[in-house]
Amino acid sequence: LDYQHVQVPFEITLWIMLASLAKIGFHLYNKLPSVVPESCLLIFVGLIMGGIIYGLNDRSPPVMDSDIFFLYLLPPIVLDAGYFMPSRPFFENIGTILLYAVVGTIWNVFGIGFSLYGICQVKAFRLQDVSLLHNLLFGSLIAAVDPVAVLAVFEEIHVNEKLHILVFGESLLNDAVTVVLYKLFRSFCEMPTIKSVDVFAGVGKFFVVGLGGVLVGLSFGFTAAFTTRFTKDIRVIEPLFVFLYSYLSYLTAEMFHLSGIVAIISCAMGMKRYVEANISLKSHTTVKYFMKMWSSVSDTLIFIFLGVSTIGENHEWNWPYICFTVIFCLVWRALGVLVLTFFVNRFHVNTITSKDQFIIAYGGLRGAICFSLVFLLPDFHRKKLFIAATTVVILFTVFVQGMTIRPLVDLLAVKRKRESAPTVGEQIHIRFLDHLLAGIEDISGHWGQYYWKDKLEYFNSKYLQKILLREYDQPKSSIVLLYEKLERKHAIELAQAGQLGHGPAHPSFLSSSDRTVITDQKLEDTPNPDVLDNMQEILARNLYRIRRTGPAYNRHTLPGDSEPSERAKEILILRHKSL
Amino acid sequence: LDYQHVQVPFEITLWIMLASLAKIGFHLYNKLPSVVPESCLLIFVGLIMGGIIYGLNDRSPPVMDSDIFFLYLLPPIVLDAGYFMPSRPFFENIGTILLYAVVGTIWNVFGIGFSLYGICQVKAFRLQDVSLLHNLLFGSLIAAVDPVAVLAVFEEIHVNEKLHILVFGESLLNDAVTVVLYKLFRSFCEMPTIKSVDVFAGVGKFFVVGLGGVLVGLSFGFTAAFTTRFTKDIRVIEPLFVFLYSYLSYLTAEMFHLSGIVAIISCAMGMKRYVEANISLKSHTTVKYFMKMWSSVSDTLIFIFLGVSTIGENHEWNWPYICFTVIFCLVWRALGVLVLTFFVNRFHVNTITSKDQFIIAYGGLRGAICFSLVFLLPDFHRKKLFIAATTVVILFTVFVQGMTIRPLVDLLAVKRKRESAPTVGEQIHIRFLDHLLAGIEDISGHWGQYYWKDKLEYFNSKYLQKILLREYDQPKSSIVLLYEKLERKHAIELAQAGQLGHGPAHPSFLSSSDRTVITDQKLEDTPNPDVLDNMQEILARNLYRIRRTGPAYNRHTLPGDSEPSERAKEILILRHKSL
Repeated sequence: LDYQHVQVPFEITLWIMLASLAKIGFHLYNKLPSVVPESCLLIFVGLIMGGIIYGLNDRSPPVMDSDIFFLYLLPPIVLDAGYFMPSRPFFENIGTILLYAVVGTIWNVFGIGFSLYGICQVKAFRLQDVSLLHNLLFGSLIAAVDPVAVLAVFEEIHVNEKLHILVFGESLLNDAVTVVLYKLFRSFCEMPTIKSVDVFAGVGKFFVVGLGGVLVGLSFGFTAAFTTRFTKDIRVIEPLFVFLYSYLSYLTAEMFHLSGIVAIISCAMGMKRYVEANISLKSHTTVKYFMKMWSSVSDTLIFIFLGVSTIGENHEWNWPYICFTVIFCLVWRALGVLVLTFFVNRFHVNTITSKDQFIIAYGGLRGAICFSLVFLLPDFHRKKLFIAATTVVILFTVFVQGMTIRPLVDLLAVKRKRESAPTVGEQIHIRFLDHLLAGIEDISGHWGQYYWKDKLEYFNSKYLQKILLREYDQPKSSIVLLYEKLERKHAIELAQAGQLGHGPAHPSFLSSSDRTVITDQKLEDTPNPDVLDNMQEILARNLYRIRRTGPAYNRHTLPGDSEPSERAKEILILRHKSL
Repeated sequence: LDYQHVQVPFEITLWIMLASLAKIGFHLYNKLPSVVPESCLLIFVGLIMGGIIYGLNDRSPPVMDSDIFFLYLLPPIVLDAGYFMPSRPFFENIGTILLYAVVGTIWNVFGIGFSLYGICQVKAFRLQDVSLLHNLLFGSLIAAVDPVAVLAVFEEIHVNEKLHILVFGESLLNDAVTVVLYKLFRSFCEMPTIKSVDVFAGVGKFFVVGLGGVLVGLSFGFTAAFTTRFTKDIRVIEPLFVFLYSYLSYLTAEMFHLSGIVAIISCAMGMKRYVEANISLKSHTTVKYFMKMWSSVSDTLIFIFLGVSTIGENHEWNWPYICFTVIFCLVWRALGVLVLTFFVNRFHVNTITSKDQFIIAYGGLRGAICFSLVFLLPDFHRKKLFIAATTVVILFTVFVQGMTIRPLVDLLAVKRKRESAPTVGEQIHIRFLDHLLAGIEDISGHWGQYYWKDKLEYFNSKYLQKILLREYDQPKSSIVLLYEKLERKHAIELAQAGQLGHGPAHPSFLSSSDRTVITDQKLEDTPNPDVLDNMQEILARNLYRIRRTGPAYNRHTLPGDSEPSERAKEILILRHKSL
């Protein structure tokens, strides 16, 4: 037996296997996941595993290594989030999201930090040795909402798209703020004196870290799109580039101390539409599938490890500090959301309702990022207290808030995601309105989002597409692509029912298609003459049944028996033509 | 800049990126890969890279780590090979393959070992310090044909299926022999005296290593199939199990010093048909795609690393030893193939022609396995000589033999792979003959391959399918599956041409379908009544055009103008029914 030799890959494989089997196990009992979020179940499995390891070895089980978390487990989840980000609601609410992510997070960091410092001044609690800087450092790591935890819970409760993107977008973009504040306070902790210059440098860093991440991400994304132009003869490695370039963007950003999360999201969002157009359908299925698979495994491993790492002896228990941390986390977030939303609602027609505000505040879950950051803290005598407080906050938010948010959403009757997909008619109207608004903004000289979107589209079709797409002279509109997709789906269904060759496709079919097909086909292109030609042609060829439903009045014939035969003849002629 | 932190994943990603870009580069110039095999080009890239590294650093570039090779690079390639192994020709020729793999490899090991020892006795060559055992050890690592190299070259020359499976199957199954002999001689080298007991134990080990590998592989394979029974609600992690279980089988086998290659191949072949039936179509596309992608990347990395590792100062040059190694490798392989084929041909009706024998002997390429094994040798004063000889043999076989084998195949007019896929008619005949032969063997009391195949099928449908398949009561015949697949493909094509709804599918379509669709749909199931019903039903529904080609004679009507209209009416009725 030579275990040493294969130990590393063997144990990794076994952990992944355990995670996957746990997932299967939950889904075998359908009732369980509908009551308890999967993340809670996984942490619970982790707690049991940790208990077993602790019981058998009589020493603390291994904690999740922060390097492993940031280098290997986090990127797949963020990549998946960025790649499948619904871009329309994201960009429509980008201002609000940024406000929550930047101002909201700073508000929380300082709110929690200062009020915990206040608690430390109470002599009865015996916490006077925790300095203000340490409290702020702790605040900077505990304040940020965690994308992994938010995704795990919000995926299951199906709130409306806007609410979802507000919470989820915030949790992704606050990474830049967290990185800056955390590193700033950590370096302050190690400095003997702090000059005011350092504070200003810190403020400047926000922009460098955030915008730098976007820049790194976009450049890798466009390189990826450019690379897939040349993979026509070697389809099999196409999916690889999507993963390689986005991972490289993350690593590069981390290397330069920029925000890796922001980088990988910009990379994914930047490359998506070009890569999709360049690679084959099967490659794309593989990309989507593998991304989902990978992120789901990472996610599972993270929660299991969270549970395992909780067990052990690296906690220092101090009731007041821990309880007040939980309370301040809740209070400051609620206050922040209230104040910020007040300003947001003054500038928007579509306001955020008070129910939505409550869910935004309540959905501020903490997760593995805080946990990894607290272990990365430099050693000082109260580190174990911080670890304990972080663990409690994470468990409290994931278990209590995560498990009660679904009943609360039901109770408050929060607006849900619409189940049916928008019809082609609706989509055409949405696009029409976009153009109309862009026109109005242009005429009135208002540089609003539609104006910029229009300009971006122009730039895209004029320059980017020509460089990044393999067949840039035929940019198919997404409506045409959608139509083709539905036709294909319909054809497959007919073939599976053994009924190919009978029944032309008709648009009423569109309403019965499931929503997943349509959501990734958002309308983002401007229609151009040849697309319109295309549409007309396709519709003309396939709307046969609708054209014939009300037969035209004709003096010489009567609508009667001869009709079906004539109709059948016409079908036959069409068929012969097509063969 | 914090490079240390991200170094490991960053460098791995960059190497993979380099490999993928190199692949794209070759395919941009279509002419190059048609003359020079890709493996040669990749080694060449590696040589250049190695030269650059050597020039810049002034020290030997890093050699390919044997652990990385055996634990991470080799398994994907072997998994891919096992999963896509054409099982029919493999099992039809299993006897011949085993003979080549076991007896042939032993023959080569001892032939090369003893004759090199003979060379060492020549005083002028100054090699007298290389003992017989060391020569045999060297023989054991240099004798085995390499699956990676064989696959890379034979995939491009398209020889007939039997010839391909003979060379490729040998290269896979000889792993068991190589493992045993290599470890045996290595331990002999370290022992002070060798008892005859040890030699007999070595012979016994063959069976343990080989059959143990098969056993480990099959048990993991069946567990994988069993696991995928329960993934209906969580499709997204289905592909994962295929990879996890097969990798575990490899690692487990390696852990117990069994043949990992044999294990992973048995695992892949054992699970394939059950997993395919259990998982969704998209999961299966992902599995296939990712396997191909992964193995292609591994393959590329291996050849590039081979090139990089060649450059450097770890060679000891001794002209006679190196030249005679190359010559003996060629001569003993040719002799072995001749002698073994003589015996094989005496027992088979389908003999192996002398042209085929030449290609089998000439296709005995060496590759990265030898290279990794030679670096794993315990340190002794002539290790560098062995490294040099191995490198030369690999480069000689890959470059000289790999580049000339295609012209030779053309020159000798070796029978090629048939380009067109077998029609459904042919497939039905093949299956019919299988049953007929099984019956004849059963009656005559001859326990031949058809008899065993029949028994295995019976066991499979009676027990295995019930345990391993989710819906075991509806085992669809592969002919029906094939038909459905073609229908679906046809439907998609029609939909893409915008012509859905016109033209029923007809069997003549089968001949125009490309061969890839059909080759992975080999006929392996026994037909049962409900499958036959199914077939009849589908054929009856779709053979409309054939039924009508010769109109039946009827006293009361004339074949004439009225005919198409009637026919059209019938189509209409059919269509209405189906709607």
